[in-house]
Amino acid sequence: MDEITIWTLDWVPKGPRGFVRDLRLRWACEEAGLPYTVRTIPFDDRETNHLARQPFGQVPYLDDGEVKLFESGAGLLHLARKSETLMPRDPVGEAETVQWLISALNSVEMVTVPWWFLGLSGAGENGLDGWAKARLDHVEAVLAGREWLAAGRFTAADLLMADVLRIPKVRSYGTRPATENYVARVTDRPAFRKAHTDQLAHFAAADESRPKSS
Amino acid sequence: MDEITIWTLDWVPKGPRGFVRDLRLRWACEEAGLPYTVRTIPFDDRETNHLARQPFGQVPYLDDGEVKLFESGAGLLHLARKSETLMPRDPVGEAETVQWLISALNSVEMVTVPWWFLGLSGAGENGLDGWAKARLDHVEAVLAGREWLAAGRFTAADLLMADVLRIPKVRSYGTRPATENYVARVTDRPAFRKAHTDQLAHFAAADESRPKSS
Repeated sequence: MDEITIWTLDWVPKGPRGFVRDLRLRWACEEAGLPYTVRTIPFDDRETNHLARQPFGQVPYLDDGEVKLFESGAGLLHLARKSETLMPRDPVGEAETVQWLISALNSVEMVTVPWWFLGLSGAGENGLDGWAKARLDHVEAVLAGREWLAAGRFTAADLLMADVLRIPKVRSYGTRPATENYVARVTDRPAFRKAHTDQLAHFAAADESRPKSS
Repeated sequence: MDEITIWTLDWVPKGPRGFVRDLRLRWACEEAGLPYTVRTIPFDDRETNHLARQPFGQVPYLDDGEVKLFESGAGLLHLARKSETLMPRDPVGEAETVQWLISALNSVEMVTVPWWFLGLSGAGENGLDGWAKARLDHVEAVLAGREWLAAGRFTAADLLMADVLRIPKVRSYGTRPATENYVARVTDRPAFRKAHTDQLAHFAAADESRPKSS
């Protein structure tokens, strides 16, 4: 059987460690008990050195035999189709999982990532503050009423939504106790902790072979 | 057989007409030859009057028998699973379609919509200009080399990417001939023109019953 290969960078600076999106795929494989290998592309020239495989110059991407995928969300959907742990097999449970997975990408992250990005410049007012607040308040209202987003149990939708919500700027933006409990609970899962520890170790190991100037 | 129901607003101002996202689902049903009905929720109090069905207060959402979905991307994936016209049945073709559909949502629209939103305020520099330019340049490079995004033929990925790219601010941002040709070609499909005409007619018909103050 072909083993799943998750492609990521060989090294990143300390800031993004623990947040590079290969974590989503590692985490999903850990939850599902799917064996996988991690392979790397060079950090240097990362914006152009793998455009043939990832046309936006990003990571991760995934190989699973003849299926070769980019976009962490697409990789997650692919893994979810392989494992009932990640997504129920009944049409209603599957639809709920897919809708919440897409909403993490296109209703929440579509606002929170540009909002975070604008905040990096630190230049006064952030034009996306109001929109980010509104979206996060909607998420809080949902999470105040239930433990999991879809199908009454952990699914790939929780994996992705928790990953979107655990970004420090998001997590600290306002008082949202249901969201905080949710992020704490989901990221306390052994599969998350394993994936997170492994990613940190992966990038730390590369420090030694890295020129000091980097 | 249960008929598909697409839910949208009963009325919107002239600006967003032709761009409300029920268009994506109408278009997909037209491509696939799937019969559907359009039903509406009131424009007034739209941010809170249907949170039980759409927790972010948006449209569209979709009913297909027991499957009830929000997020236009999730609705599209659902319809694509029903029709080979929208997505190939072989694993490789399906994976390509899903990855490009997700990239339209999470690599392109995640930048272009907040960038458009910031531009509405018109307040000087747009902090997302550089990021939007980079992402659209990546798309241009892909489209310069092929006619369709996935599987060598029209799929739901083209439907979604073209819908993301046809936003006037995106379409007029820089000279990108491959992108312009692509958008023109995809939106010249009879299924797009039917869906677009129907949406315009739907909202125009509601003008007559609308108080003049709106």
